[in-house]
Amino acid sequence: MIQSRRGADPESSYTARLFARGRAKIAQKLGEEAVETVIEGVGDNPAALVGESADLLYHLLVLWAAAGVSPADVAAELVRREGTSGIAEKRARTNL
Amino acid sequence: MIQSRRGADPESSYTARLFARGRAKIAQKLGEEAVETVIEGVGDNPAALVGESADLLYHLLVLWAAAGVSPADVAAELVRREGTSGIAEKRARTNL
Amino acid sequence: MIQSRRGADPESSYTARLFARGRAKIAQKLGEEAVETVIEGVGDNPAALVGESADLLYHLLVLWAAAGVSPADVAAELVRREGTSGIAEKRARTNL
Amino acid sequence: MIQSRRGADPESSYTARLFARGRAKIAQKLGEEAVETVIEGVGDNPAALVGESADLLYHLLVLWAAAGVSPADVAAELVRREGTSGIAEKRARTNL
Repeated sequence: MIQSRRGADPESSYTARLFARGRAKIAQKLGEEAVETVIEGVGDNPAALVGESADLLYHLLVLWAAAGVSPADVAAELVRREGTSGIAEKRARTNL
Repeated sequence: MIQSRRGADPESSYTARLFARGRAKIAQKLGEEAVETVIEGVGDNPAALVGESADLLYHLLVLWAAAGVSPADVAAELVRREGTSGIAEKRARTNL
Repeated sequence: MIQSRRGADPESSYTARLFARGRAKIAQKLGEEAVETVIEGVGDNPAALVGESADLLYHLLVLWAAAGVSPADVAAELVRREGTSGIAEKRARTNL
Repeated sequence: MIQSRRGADPESSYTARLFARGRAKIAQKLGEEAVETVIEGVGDNPAALVGESADLLYHLLVLWAAAGVSPADVAAELVRREGTSGIAEKRARTNL
């Protein structure tokens, strides 16, 4: 979906406008949504956390597309970490 | 996977340790991974962006679990936004 | 200056409007300015870093005022850390 | 102080070690401290907000030094904004 909107009219498509602004702007928006997710993450409004998480994921997907990263690349990385040792064991050796 | 590790031994499981530290600490870690994702997002190392994105998603999943939010809730929200109007059109009316 | 604008007309004063929106919104704006400062911090535009740093400091001052923290409290903390051991030595014992 | 520690022994000086790690790492640490400041900013522990604010300011000063920006540059920018119109009026025209 995001890739299909990349070439849409920036006037009518937020996604196309984001791509047009460039990677630094997309990364900035991702960071801003992360801030909102952190704030809702410590709050007591699950619905608000859902909404901010959706915004965060959307901008993350756009950032990947802009950087030439595919969701499959990230999925493979997550699977790889879940291999023999798992994130849990691998990270258990480091300080939190 | 994350839910299954929630009750694991914090000594050997990073995930269990995160849950034990509480929601504010999980949100903090999410924020820190977001900062790293933003930095790689403006850089030129796709593999590093993949790695930080995986860290970001992992901590987001843990935060959801700690807050009683399910991935299905967020997926439903993303689908909802992609309905008749779509994120693109809905947000096109607002400033970037 | 910030305290004096706290009670100004929100219509004409950005500072008064920020206070009226509450502490969570102020903290969010601080986080957003921090994201922009991080991005300029890895870039090559010193003037842009100056601009974002000014935005960051301004919102930090507003957050302190909203939380009942005075600049003198933070200055005292910085001086305290610079005492016999200094930030450098104190933190040298921990991992970067 | 920060400039004087720039050339200190990284083994004993956290500041020297930060400079040695480079600007991206310094910006990352700034971002992490900002996340903690945001979290304390929405919380109810003024002393913790003071502590995180001190960490944030310290890393901001290091980032400026690493980027060739002086505190006077940022102070001048803050004064400039406080001129005839003021941040309040200038920003009152934009959306919060």
